[in-house]
Amino acid sequence: MKVLQERIRQDGLILSDTVLKVDSFLNHQVDTQLALEIGQEFARIFAGRPVTKVLTIEASGIQFAMAAGIALGVPFLYAKKKKAVTLSEQVYSAPVHSFTRQETYQVSLSQKYLGPGDKVIIVDDFLATGAALLGLVDIVEQAGAELVGVGCVIEKSFQEGRGLLEQRGVRVHSLARISSMSPGEINFIEDEPSVSRIKEKV
Amino acid sequence: MKVLQERIRQDGLILSDTVLKVDSFLNHQVDTQLALEIGQEFARIFAGRPVTKVLTIEASGIQFAMAAGIALGVPFLYAKKKKAVTLSEQVYSAPVHSFTRQETYQVSLSQKYLGPGDKVIIVDDFLATGAALLGLVDIVEQAGAELVGVGCVIEKSFQEGRGLLEQRGVRVHSLARISSMSPGEINFIEDEPSVSRIKEKV
Repeated sequence: MKVLQERIRQDGLILSDTVLKVDSFLNHQVDTQLALEIGQEFARIFAGRPVTKVLTIEASGIQFAMAAGIALGVPFLYAKKKKAVTLSEQVYSAPVHSFTRQETYQVSLSQKYLGPGDKVIIVDDFLATGAALLGLVDIVEQAGAELVGVGCVIEKSFQEGRGLLEQRGVRVHSLARISSMSPGEINFIEDEPSVSRIKEKV
Repeated sequence: MKVLQERIRQDGLILSDTVLKVDSFLNHQVDTQLALEIGQEFARIFAGRPVTKVLTIEASGIQFAMAAGIALGVPFLYAKKKKAVTLSEQVYSAPVHSFTRQETYQVSLSQKYLGPGDKVIIVDDFLATGAALLGLVDIVEQAGAELVGVGCVIEKSFQEGRGLLEQRGVRVHSLARISSMSPGEINFIEDEPSVSRIKEKV
């Protein structure tokens, strides 16, 4: 997604070879117009495949799941990082290890909102180690729902997340794939064959 | 907001005199169309007053801040509940006590994204004790920004939050104000004089 790559070049802050801050426009302050365009891009990528729900995890996936839900005309769900006091009913849950925070938390989703018959896309802001997304894939499997694919806003392609998801048979579509970065320089993978294949099918 | 009150009557789960679950359409599974309408209602309420940014707190405020940002054509900000590893710069912060979870956490916002000259509306899903919203009001004051008002989706008017905010001179606008509830019954305050006054000004 060209406009996103340009925005990352312009406003992203590369703190090291692995840490990119995009909190001026994506995940602390949010450019609502860009978020809507990101949702439309996900809808375009998954066009022609029936989707009943968009799934993400709190907190920074919410704006993109909402944008995708708007574009697709479906509700979205956000899994919680700890079991809420008022979440008393049965939940699907999976452990997720956060490498950034060096802690493992439980991600949970009420069983009422996902089940067989649902066709789901999972959306998140970043794909790096894939830990959070693999937890969400677990939850979709527990629900017996069909996973249409995973859509990420930014992928650190030099980390293992995409590979781990693809090993599980998951289709991954990222709007900006970073092949390498260092302070002052960022390189994107321009071509995404899996997206082209989807487009040909439509 | 009539459509919201009807939806709460239809799909809300009243667990006790104080606990209302709306996680089938507002804050776990989200009806994206209703969320957009909520954003438009906030924009209508604050119409005629210049707003530069919408502020909320992660996680369940995000979808409504995004909807308000879309309707107003401005960015939104979400304060974080713990300092992120990559949030290395200066932050505004305030302590917030969660009565639901019985814990106190720090809410923080990068100083880069709010300052004098900003005109802010604060948005959240629930107003009950007002603790989280008072923390956000503190942050707006620390930033030297102008607080245009607070917009809440659901207000438990039998709790102290509105009173505490109004004591600080804050204008509060809630889309559904619950005067009382118990399993099987819910009563709303139908008239909101402060909203009418705003409307007359437009």
